[in-house]
Amino acid sequence: MNRVALSATLLGGLVLALSAAAVAPEPHRDRSPIFGVKLPHGYRDWTLISVAHEAGSNNDIRAILGNRLAVRAFREGIRPFPDGAIIARLAWRYQSSPRNDAVFPAPQSFVAGPPVNVQVSVKDSRLYAATGGWGYGQFESGRANMDRALVQSCAACHAKLDNKADRVFTDYAP
Amino acid sequence: MNRVALSATLLGGLVLALSAAAVAPEPHRDRSPIFGVKLPHGYRDWTLISVAHEAGSNNDIRAILGNRLAVRAFREGIRPFPDGAIIARLAWRYQSSPRNDAVFPAPQSFVAGPPVNVQVSVKDSRLYAATGGWGYGQFESGRANMDRALVQSCAACHAKLDNKADRVFTDYAP
Repeated sequence: MNRVALSATLLGGLVLALSAAAVAPEPHRDRSPIFGVKLPHGYRDWTLISVAHEAGSNNDIRAILGNRLAVRAFREGIRPFPDGAIIARLAWRYQSSPRNDAVFPAPQSFVAGPPVNVQVSVKDSRLYAATGGWGYGQFESGRANMDRALVQSCAACHAKLDNKADRVFTDYAP
Repeated sequence: MNRVALSATLLGGLVLALSAAAVAPEPHRDRSPIFGVKLPHGYRDWTLISVAHEAGSNNDIRAILGNRLAVRAFREGIRPFPDGAIIARLAWRYQSSPRNDAVFPAPQSFVAGPPVNVQVSVKDSRLYAATGGWGYGQFESGRANMDRALVQSCAACHAKLDNKADRVFTDYAP
């Protein structure tokens, strides 16, 4: 192999290696830091728990969904939630709807805009004993947000709720 | 039978008849007028399509759920919706949450209060040909609202939307 051929081979190898690095998934990008929470399979088809609008800097409109264990606990008023209960909070930009307002008698309609993020709370009283039995994760476009301080702030904020709520903000909307 | 006994018997019969009338279900109270739409079994576990807030005189926060046919059409952008698609719009009073606001950095949280009503749209292109293939109903506490003008106003309002929306206000929120 002459020098030119060798250089071309090395260059080709380098390009291949860089391409592989570009398409390979970043490590642990599917699990939240600290808690290792994943975006649950099929969560988008889970039963609705309730809805909310957060004004201020959030400026979002949101839906809270739950898996079967969570929904049963919400409906039957069971607290604390059983291990295996998972709550998914989906948020979208809060925006007015000129299309709806053109039909309604007055400007009044606010709808879900582009998705903001999904926050997931997983109940496991042993694994997450230090945070009241709950592990947390936040996901944007299906990927875990790797900001450790952000995920810690989930736990810190939920811990401010009183004990009888089992650190859950949402009540079931019948 | 003497006169007193006869009167007592007649009176007793009348009381029984009135009692029966009081407990008997009103006819067709489970179906909307004009369209005959029922509250679909199991709708509360259907998949979420989107959420919205109607301000003004509505002052509600709402979730739009769909059965499998409706959800597939929303996700795949299929218009018109196929026969059998059903959309359920659940509304609750829009109210601030002092409990959440006590935890958040600023007053910002609006949540679902008591339920207002459920509106149901059923696609059947032959049965409801006169109203673009959609039949409508409104339900309070699980019972059909029997106000014919109200149900007609559902159809009239949805008809104002352009054809490519197939008379549906909601877009799917991913």
